Amino acid sequence: MKLYVIGIGPGGEEQMTLRAVRALEKCDCVAGYGLYLDLIEPLLAGKERIQTGMMREVERCTAARDAALEGRTVAVISSGDAGVYGMAGLMFEVCAGHPEIDIEVVPGVTAACAGGAVLGSPLTCDFAAISLSDLLTPWETIEKRVRCAAEGDLCIALYNPASKRRTDHLQRVCDILLDVQPPETVCGLVRNIGREGERFTLTTLAQLRDTPVDMLTTVFVGNRSTKVIGGRMVTPRGYRGV
Amino acid sequence: MKLYVIGIGPGGEEQMTLRAVRALEKCDCVAGYGLYLDLIEPLLAGKERIQTGMMREVERCTAARDAALEGRTVAVISSGDAGVYGMAGLMFEVCAGHPEIDIEVVPGVTAACAGGAVLGSPLTCDFAAISLSDLLTPWETIEKRVRCAAEGDLCIALYNPASKRRTDHLQRVCDILLDVQPPETVCGLVRNIGREGERFTLTTLAQLRDTPVDMLTTVFVGNRSTKVIGGRMVTPRGYRGV
Repeated sequence: MKLYVIGIGPGGEEQMTLRAVRALEKCDCVAGYGLYLDLIEPLLAGKERIQTGMMREVERCTAARDAALEGRTVAVISSGDAGVYGMAGLMFEVCAGHPEIDIEVVPGVTAACAGGAVLGSPLTCDFAAISLSDLLTPWETIEKRVRCAAEGDLCIALYNPASKRRTDHLQRVCDILLDVQPPETVCGLVRNIGREGERFTLTTLAQLRDTPVDMLTTVFVGNRSTKVIGGRMVTPRGYRGV
Repeated sequence: MKLYVIGIGPGGEEQMTLRAVRALEKCDCVAGYGLYLDLIEPLLAGKERIQTGMMREVERCTAARDAALEGRTVAVISSGDAGVYGMAGLMFEVCAGHPEIDIEVVPGVTAACAGGAVLGSPLTCDFAAISLSDLLTPWETIEKRVRCAAEGDLCIALYNPASKRRTDHLQRVCDILLDVQPPETVCGLVRNIGREGERFTLTTLAQLRDTPVDMLTTVFVGNRSTKVIGGRMVTPRGYRGV
C-alpha cells in the first residue's frame, strides 16, 4: 500500500511540481493542516480530508497511516518541502513497524528557495536553514546553531521567526549574530511567500533586530559577501570576470 | 523587458513547478548548460538556445543579458533551484547597470530536498547546504563551514562532493566531521537524483570516508538524532508521543 508525503511548495497549485500534482491525483484521501489544504482546494474535489489543527501533527499522521492500512491511497500534505520542517520525518516514525506501507516522499520548493527568489539570490552559496520555534527544539540548541552558522560565514534562512507566544526570538538571535557579523550585514524579510500579499523588505542586521515579524515571515541573513544589487539581495558565487 | 531565471528541479519536466513551465512557455530564447537543456527538451521546441559548456557561466549569462537587451524574452535555466548554486546570483551581477531588465527568479526543488526525499527525511530539522567544489570558494572556507555545521549539530547536504580533478574532498571533509561527530553517524548518498538510474545508499560517517563518489552524487550527513527507520534515513523533528 502506498502513502505519499507531498510538499506543495509555498503557495497554491502553480507552485507545485507536476509530479506532486500527479501523486495527489492518485489519492482518495488527503491529510493536512487546514490552511494548506485550502491553498490547493481545486485539486481536492471528491477526496476525503483528514484535517486537524496546527500542533496536532501526530494525530493527523496517525490517522493518515490508519487510512492507508484500511486500503485507502493517502497523501499527507506539507507546505514547502515535505522534508524540511514538514511531515515526512513524522510519517516514517508513525509507520515504523508497518513495512507494508510504502512511503513515497514527493519533494517541493521550500521557503528558503521560494523566499530567496523573491529577494534576489541570497543563498547562492553555502547556507543554513534554522527554525526559531522552540516547541520541539530546546532554545539553547537553536542559539548554538545560529552562532555556529554565523561563525562559518553561512548565509541563513530563519524559518518561524516568531509566533504570538514567541515575540522576542528574532531579537535574541540578532544579538548572537551581531557578536559575529557586522551590523551592516545585508538581511531580507519575505512575508506571504508565493501567496496573496507577498512582499519583501531589505534591511541590515542592526535594523533587523528591531523589526517586528510574524509567523508568515521568513528571514534571510547574508554573509560577509552578500550585497544589494539593483534593489535585490544577492550573495555572489564568486565568478571571476564579472 | 523580462528575464527569467528558472530552477527546473533535479530531473526532467515532471519535477518542474507549473509556474516554471509557464514562465518557460513565455520565452523565445533559453540559456543553459547543455545537459540541463536536454532534460527539458520537449519544452524547448521552436526556441532559440544559448548553450555553453560547464564553467562558461559568465559567458552564458552575458549572452542571455544581451539577448534580453535586444528585446527577446529570455530564460536562464538552472538545475535544482535557481538560487542555490544556480545562475540567479550571477544574472543579478551581469545585469547590474541595466535596470530596464526585470529579473524574475522562479524557484525550483533543490538537491537537498529532492535527494532528501529519496533517502527518507534527513533534513527534517535545521540543516546546512555546503558545496565541496573549491573552484569558486577557497578550500579553507569550505573546511571551516563543515566544521561549524557539525559543531552546531546541523544535518548537512554536501553538494558537488567530487569531480574528476577533486577526488579526495569528501575524505578530507569526513576527517573533519569525525573530529566532532561519532563514526556511527547515519549518512546517505543519492546518485542521479530525479533522473534515470537514481539510487541511494545508507552508510555511516566512518564508512562514508572511504566511499567513492562522483559529481552526480549528493551526500547527506545526519546529526546526533538521525536514525534509520525502515531502511530510510530520518532525522526526527522531536514530536512527543510517537
